[in-house]
Amino acid sequence: MKGAHRVLAFAAANRCRFVEELRAFIRFPSVSAQPAHASDLKRCATWLADHLSKIGLQRINVIPTKGHPLVYGEWMGRRARPTVLIYGHYDVQPAEPLGEWRASPFEPIVRGDDIYGRGAADDKGQLFAHVKAIECFLRTAGELPVNVRCLFEGEEESGSTNFDPFLRRHRKALAADVALMSDMAILGPDRPAITYSMRGALSLELEVRGLRSDLHSGNFGGAVRNPLQVLCEILTSLHGADGRIRVPGFYDRVRECSLRERGYMRRYGPSDSEVLQNAGAECGWGERGFSLYERMTIRPSLTLNGIVGGYQGEGGKAVIPAHATGKLNFRLVPDQDPHEIEALFREYIVRITPPGIRSEVRGTSYAKPALVPRDHPAIRAAAVAYRLGFGAEPVFLRVGGSLPVVNSFQEILGIATVLMGFALPDDRLHGPNEKFHLPNFFNGIATSIFFLREMGKISLPRSGERACACERPEALAR
Amino acid sequence: MKGAHRVLAFAAANRCRFVEELRAFIRFPSVSAQPAHASDLKRCATWLADHLSKIGLQRINVIPTKGHPLVYGEWMGRRARPTVLIYGHYDVQPAEPLGEWRASPFEPIVRGDDIYGRGAADDKGQLFAHVKAIECFLRTAGELPVNVRCLFEGEEESGSTNFDPFLRRHRKALAADVALMSDMAILGPDRPAITYSMRGALSLELEVRGLRSDLHSGNFGGAVRNPLQVLCEILTSLHGADGRIRVPGFYDRVRECSLRERGYMRRYGPSDSEVLQNAGAECGWGERGFSLYERMTIRPSLTLNGIVGGYQGEGGKAVIPAHATGKLNFRLVPDQDPHEIEALFREYIVRITPPGIRSEVRGTSYAKPALVPRDHPAIRAAAVAYRLGFGAEPVFLRVGGSLPVVNSFQEILGIATVLMGFALPDDRLHGPNEKFHLPNFFNGIATSIFFLREMGKISLPRSGERACACERPEALAR
Repeated sequence: MKGAHRVLAFAAANRCRFVEELRAFIRFPSVSAQPAHASDLKRCATWLADHLSKIGLQRINVIPTKGHPLVYGEWMGRRARPTVLIYGHYDVQPAEPLGEWRASPFEPIVRGDDIYGRGAADDKGQLFAHVKAIECFLRTAGELPVNVRCLFEGEEESGSTNFDPFLRRHRKALAADVALMSDMAILGPDRPAITYSMRGALSLELEVRGLRSDLHSGNFGGAVRNPLQVLCEILTSLHGADGRIRVPGFYDRVRECSLRERGYMRRYGPSDSEVLQNAGAECGWGERGFSLYERMTIRPSLTLNGIVGGYQGEGGKAVIPAHATGKLNFRLVPDQDPHEIEALFREYIVRITPPGIRSEVRGTSYAKPALVPRDHPAIRAAAVAYRLGFGAEPVFLRVGGSLPVVNSFQEILGIATVLMGFALPDDRLHGPNEKFHLPNFFNGIATSIFFLREMGKISLPRSGERACACERPEALAR
Repeated sequence: MKGAHRVLAFAAANRCRFVEELRAFIRFPSVSAQPAHASDLKRCATWLADHLSKIGLQRINVIPTKGHPLVYGEWMGRRARPTVLIYGHYDVQPAEPLGEWRASPFEPIVRGDDIYGRGAADDKGQLFAHVKAIECFLRTAGELPVNVRCLFEGEEESGSTNFDPFLRRHRKALAADVALMSDMAILGPDRPAITYSMRGALSLELEVRGLRSDLHSGNFGGAVRNPLQVLCEILTSLHGADGRIRVPGFYDRVRECSLRERGYMRRYGPSDSEVLQNAGAECGWGERGFSLYERMTIRPSLTLNGIVGGYQGEGGKAVIPAHATGKLNFRLVPDQDPHEIEALFREYIVRITPPGIRSEVRGTSYAKPALVPRDHPAIRAAAVAYRLGFGAEPVFLRVGGSLPVVNSFQEILGIATVLMGFALPDDRLHGPNEKFHLPNFFNGIATSIFFLREMGKISLPRSGERACACERPEALAR
């Protein structure tokens, strides 16, 4: 490709401006789970759309949904070349607990080599690396090596409720050969990684009720069941002493990993001590017979995310709360199905709920586990891009998180997704003091530039076959 | 006594005004546990002091403390008669959860025979019955049959931190023969009760920490200990399947009740089905071998009042919280000591905290169990007063709640306390939609009038002996 170094030189020359633009992007408190922030999401979407327009993308659109809007922009000037659908999300996790942030979560600051703020890494910073790569091409070469459709979502952190229906309605207009997204961590600043496996997810709320209203714990303590205590007992009985989940049938469909793959994971994946260091934990925990990395990736898990029950204000309150709710998050592996697991969970809860107590299970989000074939030509392009962008050979990685969107692209658009992370394991995604490592931002931009260039070298089959490209990876082969 | 019927007639004629004044009293959101309400407590104290002044009490004083002020007023015109120290508290429990109130907690309304509002029964309504009884005497007879000191506290619902130091500093100025307080429930509108036994209390916070900061439950779920889950496990392991508390040594000092007293309790106390109806619970729970009434009174208990841990906002958040806190409330019986129990609890928590997790126990309030001798002359006066005021013979009652102030009066002032409740078991003290039954308010005023009259019939020993009256109840005998 002509002028690759000009594209990279433009990126290098504009780093400061790029960081300032990223700060402006992070400044929007686009918390999709909190209705109070709806207008902030709208403002953020508009800002992002304007930005795509400024850098030269076309058919810019802020697309309303029943929830928060999608942002779209494209550049389709390369008829004979593949089309890359770049996906990201501009919404962020709630910033709570606010008291634990060293600086305000939506007033991003740069300290050392890092930029701090909610969404810095998840996913504004990573998404923005691709936007900046596109800008570098269009401002220097005046064109891209491939066709690009940018599709940025505003509901990823709150279940992507309206995303699949949108994909289904616009299957044809979104036709592409492969999807690209950066919403995950690599192993270290010089250890890039291509994620090829993600766990599925199932989020549930479990509510227990047992009293007409709150009672005084002095007057009634010791004589009636305490719904909050019952909730704790139920939550405790979800795991055995061996770290396994006790919901009957839960492991029935868990696909065992080959010894060969477990060997690769042992050699190239994070060691137990690396996992603990990244987690900020003193010691590991979980299912016996598996490394921590394996427990996080090839084994399912169940996490208690929060409890809402009883008095949570300052000081004390002598109360027996009438009801209490636990928020739970399963992570699933092939071939577990979130709806099937939900049914098993419901059955188990009914069985272990004590007399006089009513329990209710509410499913709030569902995602199947996902696997991308490692020999897909776009995965090979990503490996080249990482080698050039980060100066290191990428590791093939399984991750514990879930990306429902990868399933959606597979099932609705029929395309595989390249998962090219730029975040670091200690970026504290979803936690207080989330950050993004700026050298990764810059290397990410370069990697995206190289990826688009590599993808441009792939010649397309006849256009009629595009829709099934994913099922036959050879269709994308050089 | 001259003119007893005039006093009662005045009370009957002024009922509407008394209710309106009580509404004004309830309207102050005097929530002592919440610092934001400090000025409301001050306003409420000033209002109450003004009111005491208006009805004719003397030496009115709003006494500042390190926390919320005390309100004092006295009438000491009967040298040869006993002095009654009337205690109550004008502070109230937090009103949360606000969403469960049918009307605003601090905009009291009268519906049917009840007045609804936070503090209506606990303790503004009950305290006010005595204030109104005093007014009835002073407005009609122009004098009281006994000496009276009114001492109303503003920190009862938040640990009474500054009350004991105040009593110690003013031991002599507060000299009295007996204390009187109304801060508890009777068995029903026509089943008055004299409380002679209260459980002690120990409130604790248990915090567990295990991570540097919150983690993503997708990325790390299944590989690290979840502090919130550990908290649930610890809380669950505090009770055995037999309903007993598993802290080693916990029952060592529990005094067994005589069979005779248990027989009295069975005959006159609330039945299991009455307890369940009052609690709004479908079935009972607790220590085997004891009735529900016994579990609430002669047996100790441990209640989980609240959990602060993880995500508690709307929707979900895939997080492993770095720390979590449980709020716990023990109720203790003779001869358990709250500080000794705290030490046993700390030892047990250290023992059951798993590796990699740090736990911390913070004691927040302490009260010893209290017993008042049933043959005390002031208790006998209370029985006569109830018979005349409610038209029914009172039952002698043990209650599950704690009144640290009863210990304080015993230990610091050397006097016993008469516990003359006017609230009903379904008044929802501490819960949403707290109410006070107006017929009980009116009967309470009459009962207070009769009590003061009966106390006036008791002649005093020589004044020098007053300080030890409590230790020799015969000193107060007629």
